[in-house]
Amino acid sequence: MDKTSKVKYMKRALELASEAEKIGEVPVGAVVVNNKTGEIIGEGYNRRETDRSPLAHAEIIAINEASRNLGGWRLIDCDIYITLEPCAMCAGAIINSRIEKVCFGAFDPRFGAVGSAVNLFDGRFNHCPEVESGILLDECSEVISDFFRKLRREKL
Amino acid sequence: MDKTSKVKYMKRALELASEAEKIGEVPVGAVVVNNKTGEIIGEGYNRRETDRSPLAHAEIIAINEASRNLGGWRLIDCDIYITLEPCAMCAGAIINSRIEKVCFGAFDPRFGAVGSAVNLFDGRFNHCPEVESGILLDECSEVISDFFRKLRREKL
Repeated sequence: MDKTSKVKYMKRALELASEAEKIGEVPVGAVVVNNKTGEIIGEGYNRRETDRSPLAHAEIIAINEASRNLGGWRLIDCDIYITLEPCAMCAGAIINSRIEKVCFGAFDPRFGAVGSAVNLFDGRFNHCPEVESGILLDECSEVISDFFRKLRREKL
Repeated sequence: MDKTSKVKYMKRALELASEAEKIGEVPVGAVVVNNKTGEIIGEGYNRRETDRSPLAHAEIIAINEASRNLGGWRLIDCDIYITLEPCAMCAGAIINSRIEKVCFGAFDPRFGAVGSAVNLFDGRFNHCPEVESGILLDECSEVISDFFRKLRREKL
């Protein structure tokens, strides 16, 4: 995937993150892309509070849509673009779905499972996706830190 | 929770695992229990092939049902009984849902995320459930090893 395409998909993930923010959710967006055709086959944004579900992270929703579209649990030839480093649940779902490559924007020092708190893609499991971090790093970091800054201000 | 109750819930998880086996799925079952009332509030068995979804593990289905029943993402006062050590995705979902205690039967040396391949409950995240392993260990180990033994025999 060339750099222009990667930026395009991450911009779409950022748009999805802003959808989450509009409804008061932690702004995280994710897009699953067929890396052969370039087609977006799954999208999601964090809806944990709205859906009242611990499973409703952006990546889980995007992976669910992608597997429905493909009609199977193996997301062959698929990459995922996420505004934030995935948590353990989502990194595990990425392993289970055999996604080829994970591109994320901002790091998550507390919950990130691709090197920050733990690295689940270090080869210990049967599937180890390629990783590229820092795509639109500034925009992705800003959207999440702005959200928490506002939240803290409101709580004062 | 007393030992008789623990065995009762694990027996129910084993029944669910056999439901999975009947439809050709890797036999894993899970039960979410309110540890104050003893009520089962979520059940699931592995349906990955049937549902064509990488997310359709027993634990995810049980957690989804429990959060719907409780009307929120925090599964306060809840324990989960699983016939097999959870994978990274499911261990992550258990962390995200704040389940208090994880009771599992058999160990999963390849994919287990509670000590076998990785330990996600070692205190590195904001929530660290209590763990009890080896409940009905023999029955739980047998159901999974029998399944793979039959599978290998059919493939010969």
